[in-house]
Amino acid sequence: MPIRVTVWGENVHEQKNKAVAENYPKGMHGQIAALIGEDKNLVPTTVTLQDAEHGMTVEKLANTDVLVWWGHAAHGEVKDEIVERVVQRVWEGMGLIVLHSGHHSKVFKRLMGTPANLHWREAGERERIWVVNPGHPIARGLGPYFELENEEMYGEPFSVPEPLETIFVSWFQGGEVFRSGLTYRRGAGNIFYFRPGHETYPTYHDANVGKVLRNAVNWAYNPDNHAHLLKAPNTPVDKAIEHIVERGAKLTHHPK
Amino acid sequence: MPIRVTVWGENVHEQKNKAVAENYPKGMHGQIAALIGEDKNLVPTTVTLQDAEHGMTVEKLANTDVLVWWGHAAHGEVKDEIVERVVQRVWEGMGLIVLHSGHHSKVFKRLMGTPANLHWREAGERERIWVVNPGHPIARGLGPYFELENEEMYGEPFSVPEPLETIFVSWFQGGEVFRSGLTYRRGAGNIFYFRPGHETYPTYHDANVGKVLRNAVNWAYNPDNHAHLLKAPNTPVDKAIEHIVERGAKLTHHPK
Amino acid sequence: MPIRVTVWGENVHEQKNKAVAENYPKGMHGQIAALIGEDKNLVPTTVTLQDAEHGMTVEKLANTDVLVWWGHAAHGEVKDEIVERVVQRVWEGMGLIVLHSGHHSKVFKRLMGTPANLHWREAGERERIWVVNPGHPIARGLGPYFELENEEMYGEPFSVPEPLETIFVSWFQGGEVFRSGLTYRRGAGNIFYFRPGHETYPTYHDANVGKVLRNAVNWAYNPDNHAHLLKAPNTPVDKAIEHIVERGAKLTHHPK
Amino acid sequence: MPIRVTVWGENVHEQKNKAVAENYPKGMHGQIAALIGEDKNLVPTTVTLQDAEHGMTVEKLANTDVLVWWGHAAHGEVKDEIVERVVQRVWEGMGLIVLHSGHHSKVFKRLMGTPANLHWREAGERERIWVVNPGHPIARGLGPYFELENEEMYGEPFSVPEPLETIFVSWFQGGEVFRSGLTYRRGAGNIFYFRPGHETYPTYHDANVGKVLRNAVNWAYNPDNHAHLLKAPNTPVDKAIEHIVERGAKLTHHPK
Repeated sequence: MPIRVTVWGENVHEQKNKAVAENYPKGMHGQIAALIGEDKNLVPTTVTLQDAEHGMTVEKLANTDVLVWWGHAAHGEVKDEIVERVVQRVWEGMGLIVLHSGHHSKVFKRLMGTPANLHWREAGERERIWVVNPGHPIARGLGPYFELENEEMYGEPFSVPEPLETIFVSWFQGGEVFRSGLTYRRGAGNIFYFRPGHETYPTYHDANVGKVLRNAVNWAYNPDNHAHLLKAPNTPVDKAIEHIVERGAKLTHHPK
Repeated sequence: MPIRVTVWGENVHEQKNKAVAENYPKGMHGQIAALIGEDKNLVPTTVTLQDAEHGMTVEKLANTDVLVWWGHAAHGEVKDEIVERVVQRVWEGMGLIVLHSGHHSKVFKRLMGTPANLHWREAGERERIWVVNPGHPIARGLGPYFELENEEMYGEPFSVPEPLETIFVSWFQGGEVFRSGLTYRRGAGNIFYFRPGHETYPTYHDANVGKVLRNAVNWAYNPDNHAHLLKAPNTPVDKAIEHIVERGAKLTHHPK
Repeated sequence: MPIRVTVWGENVHEQKNKAVAENYPKGMHGQIAALIGEDKNLVPTTVTLQDAEHGMTVEKLANTDVLVWWGHAAHGEVKDEIVERVVQRVWEGMGLIVLHSGHHSKVFKRLMGTPANLHWREAGERERIWVVNPGHPIARGLGPYFELENEEMYGEPFSVPEPLETIFVSWFQGGEVFRSGLTYRRGAGNIFYFRPGHETYPTYHDANVGKVLRNAVNWAYNPDNHAHLLKAPNTPVDKAIEHIVERGAKLTHHPK
Repeated sequence: MPIRVTVWGENVHEQKNKAVAENYPKGMHGQIAALIGEDKNLVPTTVTLQDAEHGMTVEKLANTDVLVWWGHAAHGEVKDEIVERVVQRVWEGMGLIVLHSGHHSKVFKRLMGTPANLHWREAGERERIWVVNPGHPIARGLGPYFELENEEMYGEPFSVPEPLETIFVSWFQGGEVFRSGLTYRRGAGNIFYFRPGHETYPTYHDANVGKVLRNAVNWAYNPDNHAHLLKAPNTPVDKAIEHIVERGAKLTHHPK
């Protein structure tokens, strides 16, 4: 069954910065969607911050299997109620791929429960991304490492929770390292953080980056809806699986 | 060095429900503090929801090494700005022990990034808490299991992130199970969730529960402050550890 | 592409115990294979302890994508060299599903690095298996729990490493709990331990058990071979990715 | 209470290689013990491969709280029965710190259940060890990173299980990265793998390395003995916690 992928683009620097516009004439979201669409089972569409409800309408989210998120300059403009809506869909089982500066997006920080800080440098230096977990489906088809000749540096400590698994670790020319590919589950939703993707460099034209994105979407896909996780139901005494007799003091005289 | 423990109590049902008041004439927070104080290296104090700033002033938090949180009826009354203040202190390294219905506190849900739901029943049934990780410091001095003759049931799925380690799993008379002791780290802060503690039963008079609380406080204690994790600093090119030359297009003309 | 599944059966109690023979006239391996074969993309075959090289020839392993292992009475009869061969195939990427008393198989203990002990009772009591991680692919299609009216009890502590994820937790009528579904990766091989399956009860005729087995095989499947993980190669100085000059004292005068 | 630390040294290259002998006139074990002894609560002693039973007698192990292991050239000479004895003490609760080339020791591979391979280069290049988990007790007192001007390179993938937590990640001058500090628990024993320590360089004269070793020993210490984890006891029906009646067919006519 085809997987419905929505690429969320902030679409700000594409409009303001010549280098970004030249790298990504279709917008970063457009190029990210193009990379994902190389797998014919993946059906990408794009939305942007500027769309009504930032493109994250109830209907659009209901029809999204995996959401890919790139933002940088305008995290603060994303409305809190939309953030909650996205987060709830993740808990229900929608996959989420967070890219690069999206580490500071409200959605990602909300799901991590941490500041997701790091230190950084914009110098166009070399990044070498090592596969530390070659058997993981997100690393499928990659060599031992791949390089991006010009990238922004992100350095440790990256204040995120210990992941389920660490897939990639980056080496930077200026002397830093970074855990560049991390997996999480929140509720029924699979989450993958992938570091590269600074807007002034042609990262989303790189073949290995495309491979990682397609692998990640396939990995994150969960065909089922687990909306039941959004509730905390009472199981009354007379519905207990094993027979029990009520005892002791109660707050609730009748089961809620 | 003595560990400064602050016990946060909601102090609502103690005032409204006769059974709770009889169980806990000093308030639940008072009795929890008494259990913790049995270890002479632990110095507990108590604050409640009704205190100014819910007792969570900047100064009080600065002087708290480990915070213990019990709440149930009034999670919604805790102000969001106080929640953020508490969460930031956890990221800096303050330990946090979340008890029972505190699973639905704003502080805990904020740090987990999940709804922290479960299903439940108030019937005074038997709970048997099994130690599944006997080598963990939080299980020190316990037998293979201990029992609470009357407890509220919490049943799986408990929608929290996969923990660093699972310490306890509960068996309930009515047929359910629950992961009753879970560890996390968020930023530099150690977090322990411990299930038992329904207010209409005498749980915080149980010797094993006291042992777990004292173990947990000692485990969660982190003597250092890691406020640096709250920042995302730039490392300018001329301060790179390894010599590099700036290349490519930039968003920032001067390092921020 | 079809997934080649090999079911390894010990085939001892089927020959000696009337109840086992009646439950499993085709052998336990035969019935486990039948359950797996209900997914038409899975192609199960069976081998047994009594086969030459216990059925685990180099060729058979090379043609196995996922191995399912049931053993109990004769763990000690499995030759160490065969155990090493199986373990190496797991490291290369073969999936492994270990069932019930297979927790004490040489293969499982070798991969865990722990004794994999537990406590137990054979009394035909009720087991209720709760799904604690409903979003995991191994839990797909199950309800909140399922029951086996007669099973052997396994009780905690189960001395295995903290898993990647806990999928199931069992409730037992006699008062115990057990982490009944646990995932691991060793090298490139995905491993799932699944608790139920005592030979004197009809567990492998249960529809939910079948569903779990098929889900687990699909989850564990890794289409790639990572035999490179069995080597520790030298990267000589003149092949370093970044130019470096050899310095300091050496053990090795010439790169190995 | 003082912590009894045993440093196990292979003591082979100290006798054969001039550079090693000059770096470590007291043997590597002697210098590692000296670093550990700077914490007055730690009481280090040393044993070597050449001692009777490799110094790992039943008595010595019974009197060891934390074992530190350095080996390289002679892993194969360590007798299998001694390896099993050490591994069982770890399961009981003895801490274990494995250093550098000890990744290929029988003891470490036995406890990991993986080949623990990597790729390597002996070129005296610069290693920079980044703290990725600053709140962990093993990182206490360190800056954001520390450097070793000359070290052997170890490169990913390091085929070990996903750790409980990743503490350090190394940057190498020649372009590689490595997860240099990893924690595990096996049975009740805490295990820390720490990468640096090639014998031809003065690594164990470095102040930060000393700090890590002392932190790691304090972290790994477990005052309790959990020998019960080495057994898999039967709990007979008439000793079940909750009353149950035996049902169904049995393998065992009388409880074992």
